[in-house]
Amino acid sequence: MDYYSSQISKLIEELSSLPGIGAKSAQRLAFHIIHMPKEQVQQMATAMVEARNNVRYCSKCYTLTDKEVCPICSDAARDEKTIMVVETTRDLVAYEKTGKYRGVYHVLHGAISPMLGIGPGDIKLKELMERLQGDVNEVIIATNSSLEGETTAMYISKLIKPTGIKVSRIASGVPVGGDLEYIDEVTLLRALEGRTEL
Amino acid sequence: MDYYSSQISKLIEELSSLPGIGAKSAQRLAFHIIHMPKEQVQQMATAMVEARNNVRYCSKCYTLTDKEVCPICSDAARDEKTIMVVETTRDLVAYEKTGKYRGVYHVLHGAISPMLGIGPGDIKLKELMERLQGDVNEVIIATNSSLEGETTAMYISKLIKPTGIKVSRIASGVPVGGDLEYIDEVTLLRALEGRTEL
Repeated sequence: MDYYSSQISKLIEELSSLPGIGAKSAQRLAFHIIHMPKEQVQQMATAMVEARNNVRYCSKCYTLTDKEVCPICSDAARDEKTIMVVETTRDLVAYEKTGKYRGVYHVLHGAISPMLGIGPGDIKLKELMERLQGDVNEVIIATNSSLEGETTAMYISKLIKPTGIKVSRIASGVPVGGDLEYIDEVTLLRALEGRTEL
Repeated sequence: MDYYSSQISKLIEELSSLPGIGAKSAQRLAFHIIHMPKEQVQQMATAMVEARNNVRYCSKCYTLTDKEVCPICSDAARDEKTIMVVETTRDLVAYEKTGKYRGVYHVLHGAISPMLGIGPGDIKLKELMERLQGDVNEVIIATNSSLEGETTAMYISKLIKPTGIKVSRIASGVPVGGDLEYIDEVTLLRALEGRTEL
């Protein structure tokens, strides 16, 4: 039943489709939005639409960006010969926040998961192998230390080994079952320093 | 520092301005939005802007609506002579969900709070008194049972008493300090039935 006017109900419905936003939160957010200055609402709506329409994959590392090549791949000061493989752009950001890693990245956009029916062909793995045709010294695998992340790490290392390129895995400083993006920077750095060759 | 492309950062920033949305949630929501179908993002953005631009106060009861007069005030089956006074539109919705109240409402949009510097002139109280010039049998005060809600209830009852109109307060079935919108429907109904004349 429509207790609100249809436009408020519509907004509540739209907001509750977002992850982690239940019916009550959607209601609170909707009323907040209705009381915000008009320009601010317009600005938020525009940010949504523009981000959705213009964000694409970096043509080199496949992170999400609104440029052809992302700022990291365009940065001449970064070491292009060291590639860190991560599952998501958020994981990339987690490592960028440490401010210490000087190599580049490769974003898989997922991990191999037989349970969810996600195979090697469903993540940006072919694209990683293509990058390895170039001049690469080391591939650091920084997938999550979950079952899927570990499976993916093993799979990638077996694929790369024959090419003779060094493959390493971030150390087990990352708690097993943990999600990379929530881990503090010190632990992330320790894991990077303690990486072991596979 | 801009770890993301500027458009992703902009979206994260906009989302984190919402109440209850922290930096991490804003990031998760932003990535969810970037992966949503384009039409769905456009639809959500439009819902925001339209709700903000078209929602106004009902000219009778001051609830939020996108029409001149809200659906409840326009409903000929409702008893216009019984007015329930609530603090917010969400409280109105909480009572509407019981499906049993057949009177109309008056939304104050706040409560008197000397602590926060909110006086009788800052809520829709003058508008309530104007409505009482008409043919009204009873005013049911359903402000929250918080300090502010009780203060407001006392203030309103003192204002109405001289007019001879019956004034009642929903029963104390509502837990003290509780927020009306979170209370179950049975308790809300019990509170309505057990209302006492002030």
